[in-house]
Amino acid sequence: MTGPMRLTEGELIRRIEAIFTGAGLCKTQAGALARVIAAGERDGCKSHGVYRIEGCLRTIKAGKVAADAMPELAPEDGAIVRVDAQGGFANSAFELGLPVLEESARRHGLAALVINDCVHFSALWPEVEAIADRGLAGIAMCPSYASVAPSGGQAPLLGTNPFAFGWPRPGRDPYVFDFATSVAARGEIELHRKAGKPLPEGWAIDRDGQPTTDPAAALEGAMLPFGGHKGSAISTMIELLAAAMIGDLTSPEALEALGTTTLAPRHGELILAFDPGRFASRAGGNPFPRAEALLDAIAGQGARLPSQRRYAARAEAQAQGIALSAEEVALMDRLAREGLAAV
Amino acid sequence: MTGPMRLTEGELIRRIEAIFTGAGLCKTQAGALARVIAAGERDGCKSHGVYRIEGCLRTIKAGKVAADAMPELAPEDGAIVRVDAQGGFANSAFELGLPVLEESARRHGLAALVINDCVHFSALWPEVEAIADRGLAGIAMCPSYASVAPSGGQAPLLGTNPFAFGWPRPGRDPYVFDFATSVAARGEIELHRKAGKPLPEGWAIDRDGQPTTDPAAALEGAMLPFGGHKGSAISTMIELLAAAMIGDLTSPEALEALGTTTLAPRHGELILAFDPGRFASRAGGNPFPRAEALLDAIAGQGARLPSQRRYAARAEAQAQGIALSAEEVALMDRLAREGLAAV
Repeated sequence: MTGPMRLTEGELIRRIEAIFTGAGLCKTQAGALARVIAAGERDGCKSHGVYRIEGCLRTIKAGKVAADAMPELAPEDGAIVRVDAQGGFANSAFELGLPVLEESARRHGLAALVINDCVHFSALWPEVEAIADRGLAGIAMCPSYASVAPSGGQAPLLGTNPFAFGWPRPGRDPYVFDFATSVAARGEIELHRKAGKPLPEGWAIDRDGQPTTDPAAALEGAMLPFGGHKGSAISTMIELLAAAMIGDLTSPEALEALGTTTLAPRHGELILAFDPGRFASRAGGNPFPRAEALLDAIAGQGARLPSQRRYAARAEAQAQGIALSAEEVALMDRLAREGLAAV
Repeated sequence: MTGPMRLTEGELIRRIEAIFTGAGLCKTQAGALARVIAAGERDGCKSHGVYRIEGCLRTIKAGKVAADAMPELAPEDGAIVRVDAQGGFANSAFELGLPVLEESARRHGLAALVINDCVHFSALWPEVEAIADRGLAGIAMCPSYASVAPSGGQAPLLGTNPFAFGWPRPGRDPYVFDFATSVAARGEIELHRKAGKPLPEGWAIDRDGQPTTDPAAALEGAMLPFGGHKGSAISTMIELLAAAMIGDLTSPEALEALGTTTLAPRHGELILAFDPGRFASRAGGNPFPRAEALLDAIAGQGARLPSQRRYAARAEAQAQGIALSAEEVALMDRLAREGLAAV
């Protein structure tokens, strides 16, 4: 039994990648997946870190992801960049599309990256942060599987449909947010159930469409969108743009295709990129002083900018290594040893 | 004294246009403004209808809008269409830019319309609806003036920053939403104050940054974003994209420039258009059956789609004329007679 340890990001990536290649993923799939899981762990996002490896393995074991998929870039089509993930995880499709998206956004001022037929795993912040790191502003959105009732509705229909945004800040970590358009994540409801704690009001309805604070009833019913009808409208927009418009599955279709909410869903994703310097011709091509003034004013009020906690955890991890508990190390060792038999 | 009456939309537009030309607006400004006000009245949006004429006149009287501004279209720049409103109202700038935006979106798959240096009046739904009427999906957003505290903040900084979306539905009214990213509109707080009613919790903070349900204290303090930190993040995104990025004023800058929240603010606006048929190549160029299935499923749960009330009011107005009360008719008569002296 090994104890807790600290790994560099590169070391953690290699360990996770080895688990996935051992489980049958090709190196393209395994590497991209390992990079986002390691980034989550590095940033203190435990809910998107090492803990998630098992879920990916379950999806592989269930045959719900193409283990050797090589994403394919479609020929240029105006300012639309298309990558077909070929049934593999979204992450390598994004990595393939990112430089082309950047080039298209620089050429046209803005561009869209459409990812089709991907098994979607992971938060969207690594994507909008990667876009911001290239000096572009980015928006990412995708459906998930039907688990959220529309505002005024009775039953699951919308997904938890995440929406993420990134804005570059010269010399500083980018402004990045990434949130589910449901009030709470499904995992938070699970946690309340396990802890035997009632849910806050407004999180969920039961199977009869009635408001409930009982986690078990909520899991049989539906979650609710954040912000009432406004959040519901944004979630619906995501279904229209990042599913219907890109010719890919909506959340109800994704659930029907998968038949469970316990594996990673298969659908598409829409990512927009904007070249701020190109847009800001009226400000001499430099939008940043004005943006910094605003962001500094927000922080100056004592309001926390989104992602600050992640960046603080990252700085610590970069200085001292990524801290893994003995249980996490043991889990990775076991998954590396047993592969798909472990899940 | 005339009584209540019903006017066709064309008749109402002509009456409103005459008030504005009488108050010194050029025909380009007056016509575009009259069309959106008449559309608001037609759709039963009293808060953006005839009632708003006086506010526009006050803005004109205060010298805060260029009464004879002719918006200027900049030369093509990739997929970015730019219109300088030249200090006039936003509405004629949008009308000038719309066909060029459509052409650019068809050519590139997506395109952006940047409106700079406009005095912003009116809701955004007429714009995203006009985009949807051309078969495109549209997103519109703009800052306003600082009146909303960021989540976790203490004082006004963000605007009520509206966000609107339109999606075309073949043979049906488009899917359109348009909402402020504040919990409530400032006007609603005014209404509570006049009625002597406390505000719901979560709407506002007082000048010391403490939660308040006292409308007067709220008006001296700050409104709050909808949906907590998520709405606050979206509002911040709007400041970054539709102010900093387009080289135009953020909400705190717009308030500083204007010095009051009682006149229409001057800043920019960002509008995105997407060609759904172009995006949906994977669905044979037809994203609509999938979109209709989703929207029908939402409506089938008894959840009201946004804008349905407007469309119902519109259908009635188109069949029977736009109903105006005796007071509204008298107001328009007086404004036409007295012009700027009336406000």
